[in-house]
Amino acid sequence: MARVRRSDRLVCLTQLFLQNPHTAVSLSDLAERLGAAKSSLSEDLSIVRAVFEQQGLGTFETATGAAGGIRYIPGVSEAFAVDFVRRLQGELADGERILPGGFLFMSDILGRPDVLDAAGRLFAHRFAGAGAEVVMTVETKGIPLAVSTARYLGLPIVVVRRNQRLTEGSAVSLNYVSGSDRRIQTMSLSRRSLREGTRALIVDDFMKAGGTARALVELLAEFGGEAVGIGVFTATLEPEKKLVGEYVSLVDIGRMDEENRRVETVRGTYFGR
Amino acid sequence: MARVRRSDRLVCLTQLFLQNPHTAVSLSDLAERLGAAKSSLSEDLSIVRAVFEQQGLGTFETATGAAGGIRYIPGVSEAFAVDFVRRLQGELADGERILPGGFLFMSDILGRPDVLDAAGRLFAHRFAGAGAEVVMTVETKGIPLAVSTARYLGLPIVVVRRNQRLTEGSAVSLNYVSGSDRRIQTMSLSRRSLREGTRALIVDDFMKAGGTARALVELLAEFGGEAVGIGVFTATLEPEKKLVGEYVSLVDIGRMDEENRRVETVRGTYFGR
Repeated sequence: MARVRRSDRLVCLTQLFLQNPHTAVSLSDLAERLGAAKSSLSEDLSIVRAVFEQQGLGTFETATGAAGGIRYIPGVSEAFAVDFVRRLQGELADGERILPGGFLFMSDILGRPDVLDAAGRLFAHRFAGAGAEVVMTVETKGIPLAVSTARYLGLPIVVVRRNQRLTEGSAVSLNYVSGSDRRIQTMSLSRRSLREGTRALIVDDFMKAGGTARALVELLAEFGGEAVGIGVFTATLEPEKKLVGEYVSLVDIGRMDEENRRVETVRGTYFGR
Repeated sequence: MARVRRSDRLVCLTQLFLQNPHTAVSLSDLAERLGAAKSSLSEDLSIVRAVFEQQGLGTFETATGAAGGIRYIPGVSEAFAVDFVRRLQGELADGERILPGGFLFMSDILGRPDVLDAAGRLFAHRFAGAGAEVVMTVETKGIPLAVSTARYLGLPIVVVRRNQRLTEGSAVSLNYVSGSDRRIQTMSLSRRSLREGTRALIVDDFMKAGGTARALVELLAEFGGEAVGIGVFTATLEPEKKLVGEYVSLVDIGRMDEENRRVETVRGTYFGR
């Protein structure tokens, strides 16, 4: 490739890293693509890295060896996380969101690009080192969140279905009791959707008792796989003890006061408890 | 903010535009945020713009007036689209994907971050000027595609459900006959999920006769809304005449030869017909 000016290289590099998170790029490839000497490229990279770290966009890892190269690890600053979750708490506290049956309407929030993006970044940041090979969720409302998280981790998503579908071939099904309403539910994952022994990050929109998350862990085990983390957008404060162990939530939901139209919200286990 | 060097500003600007597609940013705000004179900033912007356009990442629009500013419109080069769709065709042509009942297994492909990203970019590019206010899909397999497309358009997504859900409040339901298997199906969208009179881009994974897409158009109409475009990942060549008018597909699927394990694939209407 023709020689490229530093200013142009900086734009290219920034785009390339943002577009390919958690993907090792070799210095030689980069130098070739950008028509730059490795020494110039190293200077470019330290500029990009410094700005990313200063802006709280994450960090870079350099690996040596055959599969070596530089890898962008998306992250978020504590200030960004605090601010995002505080705004979410405010929105979720609106009593107009209370639906008959004690449900909280969140579909609008979970469809917004800014929310999906920020939540995906938070989960990707928190689980960056967990060694997940896929992001797993169960239809329907957790899917957008899983897509955004997977994007920032550079991983594929796997969507567990509520029913076996003809369009997915032979499947492993599992019956479980939903912890919140004690109903028997089914989930099903086609054989072709998950390689044996896969390490998965589980992402969902909501956790009450944790029955769905536990069923996902069990379904994973049926494939010889392992859950390396559980991230949920919201969890209820009650029951305090969930059917799964550790999980990361962004906002926790307490008492829903239908009369005064207020929902109690506190920040989630993302920030520790 | 403290004065920032040009090199740092280029990294910041690139990140900012990629992160906020279709969003007008005022020059004064940018100048303030980056601690730069407007004249320097203009030079920065022309560098970013030139690289983006040269790399086929899209273009920029400048609007004057109160809501004025500069706006990044993600796009793709023709070469990128051709190459991406050619690779997809190759993957989908694999006869091992044929499932009993004449379905084609695509869930793995539709879960990959590179595929979702590229497909989202293609749809966002094609429908950039359509004036959509939301990206609409029906559960389940079209959701990841809708999320990616919406991200590149800077729009929220709206997910139509197959059944009415308690967790979404009062809803409008619609029965329709699936064009492909003549079964009666239901779709349902909660009142709170869509403002009256919304212009929506419809995105889905698959179209055969077009019954689902037509039902989505009708459901939109129930909300006083309008479909400004239809984008599907794959469409079948037969029936040639669909139940909806214009649509954009990436790959079209012809004869599935179970015996010889080959699937006929041609490039979709994205490229014209």
